[in-house]
Amino acid sequence: MITGKNYVGNQLSAKGNKIFTTFNPVLNTKNSWTHTEASKEEINEAVTLASKAYEEFKNISGKDKAAFLNLIADELLALDNHLIKTYCLETGLPEGRAQGERSRTVFQLRSFAELVAEGSWVEATIDTPIPDRTPASKPDLRKMNIPIGPVVVFGASNFPLAYSTAGGDTAAALAAGCPVIVKSHPMHAGTSELVASAMVKAIKKLGMPNGVFSHLNSSGIAVGQQLVKHPKVKAVGFTGSIRGGRALLDLAAQRNEPIPVFAEMGSVNPVVILPEALQSRNAELAKTYANSITLGTGQFCTNPGLIFGLKSKALDQFIEHLGREIQAKESTVMLHPNILEAYEASKSKALSQPKTTVVTHTKDKMPANYAQQAILTVQGADFLENHSLHQEVFGPFSLIVQCESLRELESIIANLEGQLTGTLIANSTEINQYQTLISALQNRVGRLIYNGVPTGVEVCPSMVHGGPYPASTDSRFTAVGIHSIKRWVRPFSYQDWPNQRLPDELKNENPLGISRLINGEQSTRKI
Amino acid sequence: MITGKNYVGNQLSAKGNKIFTTFNPVLNTKNSWTHTEASKEEINEAVTLASKAYEEFKNISGKDKAAFLNLIADELLALDNHLIKTYCLETGLPEGRAQGERSRTVFQLRSFAELVAEGSWVEATIDTPIPDRTPASKPDLRKMNIPIGPVVVFGASNFPLAYSTAGGDTAAALAAGCPVIVKSHPMHAGTSELVASAMVKAIKKLGMPNGVFSHLNSSGIAVGQQLVKHPKVKAVGFTGSIRGGRALLDLAAQRNEPIPVFAEMGSVNPVVILPEALQSRNAELAKTYANSITLGTGQFCTNPGLIFGLKSKALDQFIEHLGREIQAKESTVMLHPNILEAYEASKSKALSQPKTTVVTHTKDKMPANYAQQAILTVQGADFLENHSLHQEVFGPFSLIVQCESLRELESIIANLEGQLTGTLIANSTEINQYQTLISALQNRVGRLIYNGVPTGVEVCPSMVHGGPYPASTDSRFTAVGIHSIKRWVRPFSYQDWPNQRLPDELKNENPLGISRLINGEQSTRKI
Repeated sequence: MITGKNYVGNQLSAKGNKIFTTFNPVLNTKNSWTHTEASKEEINEAVTLASKAYEEFKNISGKDKAAFLNLIADELLALDNHLIKTYCLETGLPEGRAQGERSRTVFQLRSFAELVAEGSWVEATIDTPIPDRTPASKPDLRKMNIPIGPVVVFGASNFPLAYSTAGGDTAAALAAGCPVIVKSHPMHAGTSELVASAMVKAIKKLGMPNGVFSHLNSSGIAVGQQLVKHPKVKAVGFTGSIRGGRALLDLAAQRNEPIPVFAEMGSVNPVVILPEALQSRNAELAKTYANSITLGTGQFCTNPGLIFGLKSKALDQFIEHLGREIQAKESTVMLHPNILEAYEASKSKALSQPKTTVVTHTKDKMPANYAQQAILTVQGADFLENHSLHQEVFGPFSLIVQCESLRELESIIANLEGQLTGTLIANSTEINQYQTLISALQNRVGRLIYNGVPTGVEVCPSMVHGGPYPASTDSRFTAVGIHSIKRWVRPFSYQDWPNQRLPDELKNENPLGISRLINGEQSTRKI
Repeated sequence: MITGKNYVGNQLSAKGNKIFTTFNPVLNTKNSWTHTEASKEEINEAVTLASKAYEEFKNISGKDKAAFLNLIADELLALDNHLIKTYCLETGLPEGRAQGERSRTVFQLRSFAELVAEGSWVEATIDTPIPDRTPASKPDLRKMNIPIGPVVVFGASNFPLAYSTAGGDTAAALAAGCPVIVKSHPMHAGTSELVASAMVKAIKKLGMPNGVFSHLNSSGIAVGQQLVKHPKVKAVGFTGSIRGGRALLDLAAQRNEPIPVFAEMGSVNPVVILPEALQSRNAELAKTYANSITLGTGQFCTNPGLIFGLKSKALDQFIEHLGREIQAKESTVMLHPNILEAYEASKSKALSQPKTTVVTHTKDKMPANYAQQAILTVQGADFLENHSLHQEVFGPFSLIVQCESLRELESIIANLEGQLTGTLIANSTEINQYQTLISALQNRVGRLIYNGVPTGVEVCPSMVHGGPYPASTDSRFTAVGIHSIKRWVRPFSYQDWPNQRLPDELKNENPLGISRLINGEQSTRKI
């Protein structure tokens, strides 16, 4: 049941007086339930509880954390159709997508459970002492990753499950041993509350410390700002717009104690199509890319928003093909009127730039909240000059950039902002010939894709979902995959600490049987 | 020979018109050589060269990087007495310290050489494809750490070799594959130039790309500011004061493209002496701590600046003993009149705080630039109220805080700022009894020490030299040990990339024989 209240720790609470509702974009009406925004008092209470819970939670075993994460997954699944239906009512996304995203969320929770149950992720590192070393004795030093403290997670508008309440950021933080305060996304506050209720169930069943998780409603930016400024908050996870992520980064940087913000802020995901590949796979590429551009109404961080080619007859044909394919696609609904409005505004801005040409722009009359997809094209020199064309248009939109020369293309790629992905469409000989171009592309992205599409972010240890700013606020981390846990931990050393008081991960007898770096050798041995 | 010029890449250059000299604190005179501050043009040239050099350097093999680092170490040693003498003339530190620090620097360079020659540090992670997976095929994904780009390193005043020109930050960045621009510390610009000349020799001998290293002189903050703001600079390493580090962090956060700053800014390194240990080792502890407090004229980031005990007769005795031991120590020279001035100012501020009592304060007439060591004491409640007593006094100084109760002590520890180290002096039964206190201490520090002193930072993989702000700007990294390389790299994914075009680290045949995470299993196997 959706109560519309916040979870301050395990306690339902609604002390505030700001009420808001979510929206059904398909029916173009407000949903029937309402939510109460968290008050300042509730925010402070949630953070204080998290800070207290940290004292206990930071020391619980990997096995107990694994049981917790697995039970969250179970309870999430137990919400069953209620969750799926609410998800659809709040997003306009189809049931299949809701189910798929739930599976992804469950998979993420179980992946982190497996990681921490095994235990080697703490990167235990041991250097044994040399008491008789000269000129000074060498102490006993042992290092491992420990949780950084309470983490605030912002729900993402476009992934109500996988990048929100019990999504990747939260799963990674809990796995690390960090309490989490979720600021739910106002557009899917009901879905978020249901997930929160599943998490609180798991907490109660396992007797996890009260405050290890709180869930706060917000209708705007105030709740998030207060959370990021709170002295007891130690890190922030965010998925959303550049403007939103940058604002949080700036807030965090201005604190007396600056804290890490990992914001994944999307990108335009440049795709470079080399001449031979374009020649040989013209129509097929157009079809593939029309699908990728319109997938989920273009509401993915990895949507291909920029396509580069060298001017040629083949490129002209590709533009024509892609235009036709996009034209033939049925329009689909966006998540929310606000997102549609933002899409229309940024698309209009692109359309109004001098020297851009419309390839296709669906103008059919269509239901409320549906997006009119568009493809534009521009000459390389004009693109290079006009930075506003480098910006993301979040929705079913792509800009084809026609370059005069390889040198121009290389120069454009080198001048792009940071991106989550870069895609190279090439034949097998071409990948050997364009090393300067590929190197320039690598410098700007977190992931290089060969002959594929950027949409589809596989959840696995080898995934990097992140990249140079503004794709993310810190390119040294990924938001997806088990290694995303590194965002929420810090290395910690014990010097000459008595063996029996060390955490199990660092004890001589290696009771957990984990892999450790002992005097420079990786091993599961005892000492 | 000290030319006083900058190295812009391999080129000696002195286009600026600001001339400065270093200072001999022992003789209380300027040194005979002069330096020319880098001009704006030279700064820009150095960064541009670094950015170009990155294109080549990012792809060189681990073995070649190892040869480079080892040759830097060799060339450093070849500077022989010229380096040692210059070091002493610019710092007032004794020859033994210069030699020890040189050994440490060489050891660091060789440790990183070993790390990258072996190669597994890139954390290669491979997930092989599942073409027939439903509902969607699984792509081939391979991830490894790649260098982040040109890194600016600020020389540290108190470690002219180990944390400066070819010190830990530089060695880690070069090992990672990042070009380095060193802003030399104005107080030891001659020592720094000598080290730079050794590095340029190594670059030339091995044909490393011009621009992989530059060395810029500065007399104040302008050169550093310009470097941190330069769009082609991708990360910053700094060791020094909180004010200096925070200023750089703020500058970097205000860039269009914010970049990571790892600043290690020192701390007060709280030492907690528990009652039984105090009782049984009173005089011995006083002697040990008198040595630690005055070591290197107290000019270490890990100098014990705060000592906590529970009020008792034993604590009174300890205070008396420590006062006598400190009184008996001969005063020693500080690095520079500016540092002495800063010491006197912050010490005077501490002395002028209400409710502090002087235990000892050497007032003998002494040579210019020598530091008068001091021990103060204060009641716990007064310390808790007066935040200015929590600040570092950089020099031979320590404040003893006398706590009324364990609860007061716990509360004080929980309210301390972030620290590099926390030390527990306890008997073997006490370490079991004071878990709340120890947990609070752990939350505030990067390294916990049992029955030792915080001074002495062992260079080994298990060392954490860093900690919660303001000990460092990002507690998720260490400044010392091979894992400090993580500050300068970012993870990078290849999706469906052709095997022959992958870096060796990720190729099926594993030509480097490194350890990789393949489908979740750590192994050196081929695929």
